[in-house]
Amino acid sequence: MEGLRVAVVGATGLVGQKILEILGAGRIPVAELRPMASQRSAGSSVEFRGKRLTVIPAGPREFAGCDVAFFAAGSSVSKELAPAAVEQGAICIDKSNAFRMNPSVPLVVPEVNSADLALHSGLIASPNCSTIQLVLVLKPIHDAVGLERVVVSTYQSVSGTGHAAIAELRQQSNDILEGRDARAVVYSRPIAFNLIPQIDSFDDSGYTLEERKLMDESRKILGLPDLKVTATAVRAPVFFAHCEAVNLQTRKPLTPGDARRLLAGAEGVSVVDDPQHHLYPTPVDATGRDEVFVGRIREDHSARNGLNLWIVADNLRKGAATNAVQILEALIRKGMVLRPLGGGTV
Amino acid sequence: MEGLRVAVVGATGLVGQKILEILGAGRIPVAELRPMASQRSAGSSVEFRGKRLTVIPAGPREFAGCDVAFFAAGSSVSKELAPAAVEQGAICIDKSNAFRMNPSVPLVVPEVNSADLALHSGLIASPNCSTIQLVLVLKPIHDAVGLERVVVSTYQSVSGTGHAAIAELRQQSNDILEGRDARAVVYSRPIAFNLIPQIDSFDDSGYTLEERKLMDESRKILGLPDLKVTATAVRAPVFFAHCEAVNLQTRKPLTPGDARRLLAGAEGVSVVDDPQHHLYPTPVDATGRDEVFVGRIREDHSARNGLNLWIVADNLRKGAATNAVQILEALIRKGMVLRPLGGGTV
Repeated sequence: MEGLRVAVVGATGLVGQKILEILGAGRIPVAELRPMASQRSAGSSVEFRGKRLTVIPAGPREFAGCDVAFFAAGSSVSKELAPAAVEQGAICIDKSNAFRMNPSVPLVVPEVNSADLALHSGLIASPNCSTIQLVLVLKPIHDAVGLERVVVSTYQSVSGTGHAAIAELRQQSNDILEGRDARAVVYSRPIAFNLIPQIDSFDDSGYTLEERKLMDESRKILGLPDLKVTATAVRAPVFFAHCEAVNLQTRKPLTPGDARRLLAGAEGVSVVDDPQHHLYPTPVDATGRDEVFVGRIREDHSARNGLNLWIVADNLRKGAATNAVQILEALIRKGMVLRPLGGGTV
Repeated sequence: MEGLRVAVVGATGLVGQKILEILGAGRIPVAELRPMASQRSAGSSVEFRGKRLTVIPAGPREFAGCDVAFFAAGSSVSKELAPAAVEQGAICIDKSNAFRMNPSVPLVVPEVNSADLALHSGLIASPNCSTIQLVLVLKPIHDAVGLERVVVSTYQSVSGTGHAAIAELRQQSNDILEGRDARAVVYSRPIAFNLIPQIDSFDDSGYTLEERKLMDESRKILGLPDLKVTATAVRAPVFFAHCEAVNLQTRKPLTPGDARRLLAGAEGVSVVDDPQHHLYPTPVDATGRDEVFVGRIREDHSARNGLNLWIVADNLRKGAATNAVQILEALIRKGMVLRPLGGGTV
């Protein structure tokens, strides 16, 4: 058989669909694509490389013969099914929060820490969207001058929540523009023409789970367990792409010009930073792109070796589906996929 | 004569109209209200205390007999006309950027530094919207424990730009929802369902004028010329109210509980901070209100005495018109209005 047998759990969700799209357009040889979803979505169909495939209900016995399983259906589904998939021989690439902070599970952004893939035992976690775009920019800076402290404020699009949130932003925006009251179902209150300083649930210390993910996952991926980092995560009335205003302090000085050159040379990062010509990243411009965009790079005189940055990326692509597929590509490059590839053409 | 003769320059603009509304509803005795605007808007009418008043063209000879003149028409108009108004005996309260950093002009948020009014020579500046809501929260914290450093990221509504920006956000939102391209006139690109990390023009160091205002004006108002503060200012697709994610370091420790108690007792500040019940400030909830709302107060473990906050206020009210009217009220309380009030009833 030439190519991999690949399961996608959550194939009808925003991230699952994007995984199918990126896998379909990419160079990974796929012999079989097995789309799975909840009982509710099973029986519907998805498109893969021009063919309609019927979605089957995700269940522990459906991974037989699979080489790789992408999980993009939330933590509880991953917790329930990923161990069964691993047992049946599939390498699982999990987009959910279920196993990310498990010390025996690599949490990987390929450009940053693909070496961690060597430690996997069948399960690899892909980080949270807002973490991925942050560490892609932090890594080259840390390698060059050392990170002292990171303060992040996010501006996150509703597509991070899924199909229903996109529909709700559309509906509420329409309602408000036409003078009707906006009704909130997905979030605690209407998001249209509003900002909500809550993403995911709160813990006892007043931080949200999203903020904790940004801090904890960044430390794990960068291999800096003591990295000083704090975050405020805010939902914005934007459909696609997340933004981050980032304030850095570095150990050694780094001029804005040197930061631009450093980041321009970093894999997966694109510098868009010519303010005099109104060039800086925005969510609309980043939508549909795989790079992480950075701009507004400038010195912060309020701290020793201070630097301000503005980071934007498509949360469904590099923030989710692209990174998951890149993990598979890295595994293939390293010869770590269990089933040998027929042609070895990747 | 009972009451003041008051000119409002820029009476047809968003801030000018809000000044008329707040003056009209308040307790300041107004014997005459003289609405002025550019030649383009002259001849139209505005409402004040139930009456329609004809708008006259703003000009250097139109301030004769005025006790007070509010300027809400941009820097160039203030620079051109405020000196003439002062010469004709009017106290000028200027909402523009024209004189704010002039050392001989008090820059006043009454709850914070009304003592500075004593130094005025006919001209008093009201700060930028994003500065006002920040210093109202910083002042009590500085008085209690000392400020060490402040990092601000803003999320600012389009009403800060004026009528045209509100119309453009509506139009672009409609266009996008109906599948048409959005056309940008007011900003460098469409703001609907987008975020633009530029407010006002850029200087050579890569900061925008809005960011400079936040830093420089805060230092002047707080009387802390060396305050360590840095800012990133971002336009959000929100109609009214600005938000700020603020990271603080203080000299002495301040627990979140103590910060809540301190701010709950601060004049003009309202604490909305019960995340377990989804209670935190949002722009929609703050619209039409005069208070500055603060929530998401929590410890930041990445720095000594670190604290994170989320500050929201209506940029047209406390961020502009309310503060300007409160400056006049403070002048009256201090007996500093040139023309004695007939009844002394204020």
